Amino acid sequence: MPTQNPVFIPGPTNVPDRLRHAMDMQTVDHRAPDFERQFVPLLQSLKSIFGTTSGEVFLFPSTGTGGWEAAVTNTLSPGDEVLAGRYGMFSHRWIELCRKQGLYVHAVQADWGDGVPVDEYERILAADTGHRIKAVLACHNETATGVTSDIAAVRRALDAAEHPAMLFVDGVSSIASMDFRMDDWGVDVAVTGSQKGLMLSPGLAIIAVSPQALEACHSSGCTRSYFDILAMRDANRAGSFPYTPPTGLIRGLRESMSMLSAEGLPRVFARHRRIAEGVRRAVGAWGLSLCAKRPELYSNTVSAIEVPRGFDSGVLVRHAYEHYGVSFGGGLGDVAGRVFRIGHLGDMTDVMALAGLAAAEMAMANLDYPIELGSGVVAAQQYYSATRNHWKQEVA
Amino acid sequence: MPTQNPVFIPGPTNVPDRLRHAMDMQTVDHRAPDFERQFVPLLQSLKSIFGTTSGEVFLFPSTGTGGWEAAVTNTLSPGDEVLAGRYGMFSHRWIELCRKQGLYVHAVQADWGDGVPVDEYERILAADTGHRIKAVLACHNETATGVTSDIAAVRRALDAAEHPAMLFVDGVSSIASMDFRMDDWGVDVAVTGSQKGLMLSPGLAIIAVSPQALEACHSSGCTRSYFDILAMRDANRAGSFPYTPPTGLIRGLRESMSMLSAEGLPRVFARHRRIAEGVRRAVGAWGLSLCAKRPELYSNTVSAIEVPRGFDSGVLVRHAYEHYGVSFGGGLGDVAGRVFRIGHLGDMTDVMALAGLAAAEMAMANLDYPIELGSGVVAAQQYYSATRNHWKQEVA
Amino acid sequence: MPTQNPVFIPGPTNVPDRLRHAMDMQTVDHRAPDFERQFVPLLQSLKSIFGTTSGEVFLFPSTGTGGWEAAVTNTLSPGDEVLAGRYGMFSHRWIELCRKQGLYVHAVQADWGDGVPVDEYERILAADTGHRIKAVLACHNETATGVTSDIAAVRRALDAAEHPAMLFVDGVSSIASMDFRMDDWGVDVAVTGSQKGLMLSPGLAIIAVSPQALEACHSSGCTRSYFDILAMRDANRAGSFPYTPPTGLIRGLRESMSMLSAEGLPRVFARHRRIAEGVRRAVGAWGLSLCAKRPELYSNTVSAIEVPRGFDSGVLVRHAYEHYGVSFGGGLGDVAGRVFRIGHLGDMTDVMALAGLAAAEMAMANLDYPIELGSGVVAAQQYYSATRNHWKQEVA
Amino acid sequence: MPTQNPVFIPGPTNVPDRLRHAMDMQTVDHRAPDFERQFVPLLQSLKSIFGTTSGEVFLFPSTGTGGWEAAVTNTLSPGDEVLAGRYGMFSHRWIELCRKQGLYVHAVQADWGDGVPVDEYERILAADTGHRIKAVLACHNETATGVTSDIAAVRRALDAAEHPAMLFVDGVSSIASMDFRMDDWGVDVAVTGSQKGLMLSPGLAIIAVSPQALEACHSSGCTRSYFDILAMRDANRAGSFPYTPPTGLIRGLRESMSMLSAEGLPRVFARHRRIAEGVRRAVGAWGLSLCAKRPELYSNTVSAIEVPRGFDSGVLVRHAYEHYGVSFGGGLGDVAGRVFRIGHLGDMTDVMALAGLAAAEMAMANLDYPIELGSGVVAAQQYYSATRNHWKQEVA
Repeated sequence: MPTQNPVFIPGPTNVPDRLRHAMDMQTVDHRAPDFERQFVPLLQSLKSIFGTTSGEVFLFPSTGTGGWEAAVTNTLSPGDEVLAGRYGMFSHRWIELCRKQGLYVHAVQADWGDGVPVDEYERILAADTGHRIKAVLACHNETATGVTSDIAAVRRALDAAEHPAMLFVDGVSSIASMDFRMDDWGVDVAVTGSQKGLMLSPGLAIIAVSPQALEACHSSGCTRSYFDILAMRDANRAGSFPYTPPTGLIRGLRESMSMLSAEGLPRVFARHRRIAEGVRRAVGAWGLSLCAKRPELYSNTVSAIEVPRGFDSGVLVRHAYEHYGVSFGGGLGDVAGRVFRIGHLGDMTDVMALAGLAAAEMAMANLDYPIELGSGVVAAQQYYSATRNHWKQEVA
Repeated sequence: MPTQNPVFIPGPTNVPDRLRHAMDMQTVDHRAPDFERQFVPLLQSLKSIFGTTSGEVFLFPSTGTGGWEAAVTNTLSPGDEVLAGRYGMFSHRWIELCRKQGLYVHAVQADWGDGVPVDEYERILAADTGHRIKAVLACHNETATGVTSDIAAVRRALDAAEHPAMLFVDGVSSIASMDFRMDDWGVDVAVTGSQKGLMLSPGLAIIAVSPQALEACHSSGCTRSYFDILAMRDANRAGSFPYTPPTGLIRGLRESMSMLSAEGLPRVFARHRRIAEGVRRAVGAWGLSLCAKRPELYSNTVSAIEVPRGFDSGVLVRHAYEHYGVSFGGGLGDVAGRVFRIGHLGDMTDVMALAGLAAAEMAMANLDYPIELGSGVVAAQQYYSATRNHWKQEVA
Repeated sequence: MPTQNPVFIPGPTNVPDRLRHAMDMQTVDHRAPDFERQFVPLLQSLKSIFGTTSGEVFLFPSTGTGGWEAAVTNTLSPGDEVLAGRYGMFSHRWIELCRKQGLYVHAVQADWGDGVPVDEYERILAADTGHRIKAVLACHNETATGVTSDIAAVRRALDAAEHPAMLFVDGVSSIASMDFRMDDWGVDVAVTGSQKGLMLSPGLAIIAVSPQALEACHSSGCTRSYFDILAMRDANRAGSFPYTPPTGLIRGLRESMSMLSAEGLPRVFARHRRIAEGVRRAVGAWGLSLCAKRPELYSNTVSAIEVPRGFDSGVLVRHAYEHYGVSFGGGLGDVAGRVFRIGHLGDMTDVMALAGLAAAEMAMANLDYPIELGSGVVAAQQYYSATRNHWKQEVA
Repeated sequence: MPTQNPVFIPGPTNVPDRLRHAMDMQTVDHRAPDFERQFVPLLQSLKSIFGTTSGEVFLFPSTGTGGWEAAVTNTLSPGDEVLAGRYGMFSHRWIELCRKQGLYVHAVQADWGDGVPVDEYERILAADTGHRIKAVLACHNETATGVTSDIAAVRRALDAAEHPAMLFVDGVSSIASMDFRMDDWGVDVAVTGSQKGLMLSPGLAIIAVSPQALEACHSSGCTRSYFDILAMRDANRAGSFPYTPPTGLIRGLRESMSMLSAEGLPRVFARHRRIAEGVRRAVGAWGLSLCAKRPELYSNTVSAIEVPRGFDSGVLVRHAYEHYGVSFGGGLGDVAGRVFRIGHLGDMTDVMALAGLAAAEMAMANLDYPIELGSGVVAAQQYYSATRNHWKQEVA
């Protein structure tokens, strides 16, 4: 059976050949001078995707979850209070992780489909006159619901409350695909991974840490060893790693940054916006709704689509996989069975997106969804064909 | 710019990862015993795609053109007469090649879009009571026009005329994707290449030769050296090659045969038929016509589509490439500017075909073709979604 | 400059093409049924390299260090006492990790070059009548010194003292290259990684956990989240992962196990023993000594070689890299500057080992070491050529 | 069983990862503008390895044999006389090919181990006052005997005789590894392949053709179609190919030229000279002789070594393969059983060469050759270690 269909899961994303070749290397000596010569500039170049000049970047062989753990265990102490919103599976999991680490989490519940609850954050922060809250957590792009939150607004809430808490942001499915402005937004730790906008295999948590957060590492009381930022920093400064580095992924990361730089980050972001908008036009034509409640929350990397009442999105996802060999994301947690997700980040073209929409339509039609076969595809085609020049100008 | 779109040219076709890995090998010693152990069974297994048990298979590092040359230079002598139809660019080129080799060709002109002119063949053969015609040429699947001809009918014409001429068939874009019955049809030399239904890189001509044609090799007067079948046969019998064999392609060929065998050739053919029919439904929905004149001529590996009067298919192909990064075949020779071609052979899925159709539609719409955007995609979606079970049963 | 020389570092090891191809895959959906179908049997098959039937295997995307952390944080509580020997850089680091995790470590110092101090262990365990020591740590193969310790003896020490402490073993550079008998030796957690005997890229810690240790996970007081064994186990039982799995490494691991199984573990071990013995013959011919103090400590995966007084092994390693493009391991920690290491594990042949020995000799000669050029190579050649049949019988 | 040993056959040579990745590409459209943009400059850049500015380069998907055929069939007519020396298997085969093509060959026999018989050439040319000889053939590097001939001397012979014959040179195993000066030497057609100094997979004949030879193409009477230079030239000028081009090999060739250019051809040649000299030192230390009769004939890409009387080199080659997994070249034709060959061209290092020498020594010792184990390796080590700086200066 042919196996060439792209995936439409919101990560790991489709890997371009150029990056597959970069990662597929014969073993090199990670203690040799060549490694240092390539690794140190890479850490510098990665700052661009975080939008930081003052922060420092660290790579932990792990996943985004490891990045979350590094963020909180290096900067906080057991019993510290943390403010976090729960509005999707990944913001939920980060809260759970904090609790496992002995932190006290003020978990602000928001609807799944809504963004970070800024007003509630502001109210809580203002009330916390004793500054017991040491860190505020936010998920920039909630992959489970296709919601992009306004991190600048969280910063404004902190500033309005004149609150000194650090701001930690999960940018796993946004960074390198959407604009992220760590310095402008006053983010203290930002977390991403290799397998989303960077188009690589999974296996690397990539975090950027502000000077303030680095300072906090010296007084943190949480235990950590594998994810110890200061130990990593000491090793990195000597051009090395505290343990065996994943040399293939590091080489891939250099190549990925080279591709993104050549295209130009603004064009990368515009490309993601255009692909996403085409998918949204299709969803509209189907008469379906996004899980994301308002247009300003719509994610440019993943669309979570609500299935009509009486349908189970898990059945849909399975059907598409079994009958058409196409993978979509299912619903997770509170929205299990209720949404399916089309990942449209990374190495994705308009034509690939149309393939995914066509497959989703066929699967829905097979399952008697009240949609018109072809309606979504044509809506996306209209948008993509109308914007083809616009896109060429932006990304050429 | 992302580079993951499949190609829709009628070869070289999209290469599955499994075959890319098979071809991507470190150098091995082609004179070592391992080579012989793998090469000799491969030649045996290749007989299945030709539909022969009595023929012998040979591999020449070259292209299909090299296969044509091998066919005629090993079996004929300068001045020999050959009967051939000209009904597309590739049947045309084979005729030209024969003339370069000093053969006299009775070239029967047929409309481009029609198949092998069997009636005319029969008339000429019957008239050739002196049996001056030594070989009859036919292109099983004319890649330039998307026409599949009835080779069994050519055999019947030969038999009806009680004519002893050999039958040489170009199956470059049919073999391993469509049913080919060398023994049943009395074919003496059949030619294919690595880069079509076998899903490999270009670089190998693969030919099957009947006992009668092998016998003719001993008395042929044409000069040949690189393409000398008897020298190749002698070397092969010793488990070797008369010159450096393309070991990567040979390893790829073993893996390709393994994939095709596991799927089962009848299912491979059914898969191609289904993908092709979806494309034809789209063409019908666009209100356009195939270059192939009648349904029984429709090719299951490539569809050549006539553009409306006043449009230039070359502009369309270029537009699709430049604006959507999608490659279609252009018109060649007599139908240059008048047809564009969608290759749908090899490692192609229904979902990939829909991507190609969607791209073709957008390009046509951009160029103000009188088609309805989405019409072709939905027609193909209807067919593909309706036949999904049928296909699963056949190919599962 | 050519780049084909193998590496002689004791990991990451040279990666065979077959495993490179297995790891180099286009993205697949890790939530699709196929993943589960392949992942669950893999966990089963991995038990063989640990020598366990009762233990369970878990994969953490990280490195061996992550495996160490998983071992202790899942089974122990802050303040728990641990008994460990320090006789090389890696046993040292594991002790440091334990201390970072709030454990109290009885660190028994042994000479670097000696093995696990079993007698001292037995004395301490016997004295610990209150059973305050909850776990005993041992490094099966100390990669920094090329010392293989007798884990069965550690078990006997525990049994002699009738001590209930768990036994945790670092088998990072031994497992899959040397015999490891988790069940026989009563090991509770054994740790290895993807980049040594398994011949893959770095990025996976692989641990096996005994029923007793799994039971201890329920009452452990250490914080953990990323490395939470029970959460991993729950996810694995559902055929999934608590976070994005490294699908390429997992696919590589299946292929690696397939290669090792086909060869047969006893033959794999015999092959490593033979390669190692050749290297040791060379060391003897050079008139140099191994860091490992006694023959029964000699490691079959890495040889740490003491340089003569007055020489700096760091200079030697750098010279070999710069002038011959060959990587050896340097001295770490207490033996920095005093030993250089030849890794001879994983995908290594006698001929490759000879290349490494020849390069080491040239580098030593260039730096005026008191060795005879060629002496080591010929000693190894004599051994390898004399044992060629023996090896064929064992591994053919 | 490990499979990482390099090959020591004189082609196909070991392929660097960078070139493997260049060749391993997903299908691209060879009729798209991108192909032309990359292909046309490649043809230009290839002139450098031929040492020509006035010649034109052509690529035929085939092997060196195809290049030989192209050389003679495009420029000569049946019955034309050709002068050629027979001093090895490849010069012999080219003569046989000419005869198959209907040419009359003055075959000058020379000892296998000697070079092109220049004096005899000069005598014959001087005697050919009627200029019936249309072409003179010479094999620059006879791969079967490890002999490099003096092509400049052949040119001098032609000039001394004031003879207008064209000069055709087989540079298959020399070009891109040794200095080749097509223009200076007045070569009319030079032939090489992808799988030797260019370090690629087999599959491409690469030929350079002088203006005089191109002119001769217009009046040649030999039949040709696949290997028609003028048809290739017409297609190339339009940025295309007369049949499906091997896009992977073409991409690999661009990368290979990029590697060679970056290193600098003089350094590439110096590197080959140094590796070869080390091998020759080993042969001398073994007390064996090269097949090449005099130092000025010694090839820098392949050494053919005479085995002592009473030994069969075929047994030796087989033994090395079966027992050590190392491939050497055997003896061909007149020297079958009498020489074995060590290929040391392409992507080869001193350390790799030592591995090959060590393996050859072990195999010879196993078979009771009168050589001292290690003697060759140490001789090569002495040379390589003494010249390491020299080499660094030349190639750094």
